[in-house]
Amino acid sequence: MTSRILVHDVGMRDGLQVERTIVPTERKIAWIERLLASRVDAVQVGSFVNPRIVPQMADTEAVCRHFAGRSSPRTRLTALVLNEKGLERGLAAGIDAFCMGVSASETHSRKNTGMGTEEAATRIIAMARTAVEARASVQLSVQSAFGCGYEGAIPATRVIALIQRFVDAGFDTLSLADTAGHAMPPQVRALFDAVRGAAPDATWACHFHDTYGLAMANACAALEAGVQSFEAAFGGLGGCPFTAVAGTNLCTEDFVHLLQHGGQRADIDVTALNDVACTAEAFFGRPLPGKLHAIPAVEA
Amino acid sequence: MTSRILVHDVGMRDGLQVERTIVPTERKIAWIERLLASRVDAVQVGSFVNPRIVPQMADTEAVCRHFAGRSSPRTRLTALVLNEKGLERGLAAGIDAFCMGVSASETHSRKNTGMGTEEAATRIIAMARTAVEARASVQLSVQSAFGCGYEGAIPATRVIALIQRFVDAGFDTLSLADTAGHAMPPQVRALFDAVRGAAPDATWACHFHDTYGLAMANACAALEAGVQSFEAAFGGLGGCPFTAVAGTNLCTEDFVHLLQHGGQRADIDVTALNDVACTAEAFFGRPLPGKLHAIPAVEA
Repeated sequence: MTSRILVHDVGMRDGLQVERTIVPTERKIAWIERLLASRVDAVQVGSFVNPRIVPQMADTEAVCRHFAGRSSPRTRLTALVLNEKGLERGLAAGIDAFCMGVSASETHSRKNTGMGTEEAATRIIAMARTAVEARASVQLSVQSAFGCGYEGAIPATRVIALIQRFVDAGFDTLSLADTAGHAMPPQVRALFDAVRGAAPDATWACHFHDTYGLAMANACAALEAGVQSFEAAFGGLGGCPFTAVAGTNLCTEDFVHLLQHGGQRADIDVTALNDVACTAEAFFGRPLPGKLHAIPAVEA
Repeated sequence: MTSRILVHDVGMRDGLQVERTIVPTERKIAWIERLLASRVDAVQVGSFVNPRIVPQMADTEAVCRHFAGRSSPRTRLTALVLNEKGLERGLAAGIDAFCMGVSASETHSRKNTGMGTEEAATRIIAMARTAVEARASVQLSVQSAFGCGYEGAIPATRVIALIQRFVDAGFDTLSLADTAGHAMPPQVRALFDAVRGAAPDATWACHFHDTYGLAMANACAALEAGVQSFEAAFGGLGGCPFTAVAGTNLCTEDFVHLLQHGGQRADIDVTALNDVACTAEAFFGRPLPGKLHAIPAVEA
């Protein structure tokens, strides 16, 4: 671990989106305030998607109104958008950091967006340009980069070709997402090595799900591969509603605990992250899969 | 991964020993039969300890009676013993493969055995010699090798000194156990590199707990470090009653899934392991932490 590792909590989006119990806006705001107090580098506040399809995200504008002007270089408030309508809503809500992605799996792409990978890439790149013109930053991600719940293995060449399109369009904040949780540590190292070859100057992020119990092992492999930014969810909440298997997310506080034992990110307040995980656990009335938040304070 | 990786399921011992609900002997036998059907390399059938302290292990003799003569080079039936009385009982019960260990943590050693590390090592080596004289095989382990719930960090020099004593006494099947789950992947690689330097001809095993969500990541680090044998528990059941934090075990079927995706151990029947995990889950009436067994069969 040579450069500063960045932590991007996406629990308010990728954690909540599959939950059937709607979290009231005031609670979302309180959880985000506590996430910000932890001093992670970025907090994803929600997504601008069809509220009929993802009702949990229907109040993202209201959440953004509360945090207007709070996004800063120290702690970025981000949002996910899937299409032009979402981008328009996000820009209107004052979002200055967008996450957008294209699935390397043709089937996943069609189920998620109604378009195949090629068409989706063209559209996302145009959206990313619109966001940049509006002075927002953009992280472009390849979803299902390590495998797909529908298609199984995804050839690395498909991932590299998508990354090449992003790079050719001038984007350099890039991410590989293991949307369905199929990644294996050796594959993580190999694929990040390969895409870094295609885009040596890019800044890399990653996103892992724990479907097969490998989220943390894959994050460790990504650390070794020089990936700088890690998406994770408080308590390990989450899953993806558009994949066949909905694995939970890499757990933010468990990952931060690892970093801190490696001598990194002592500035992040794990207690604040644990608080959000414990609060969410109480709200949903079931244990969340993360480990650190469940350990009595005297032991942690 | 160059050599054949061995899987040793210890769920019947390290998984069950903390469970308050006693598993009836007939059920234990059924679970062990299914574990044997999975074709893992070794199954720990129980421990010979004080039944007043660990009531769950009170029927280990009865379990052994059922499996008399079933231990073979293909699938070894093992047992844990902590003292001479336990060894005597184990030999009388026909066990031909013993696991014994000494804690590198003075505090953990005293709480677990009433003796400090040095005295415990002398005693364990004498016990190991007795077992070998009785034609049993022995795996000698350093417990709390990566940290301790009571003492915190454990100096690598303490671990290496214990390994040196085992080697000097002529033992070459050795293990490092992360009893409290404090290990970090870089530490796992470094410590195994160090002990292999001290005992280049030994065969190495490892044992990880998921206290901080790192069991699988540590197992991956051990794979990279050339460790050959992996102790794990079906469903990820378990924890250690003698440490301050009782983390669950590395999950056998999740680890086997990783191996199989790496092109290894296609001969192990993951379905049989999943069966035991699902059966134990139903018996204890709560979800176990392993992932694979909870995925609908069509998806796995």
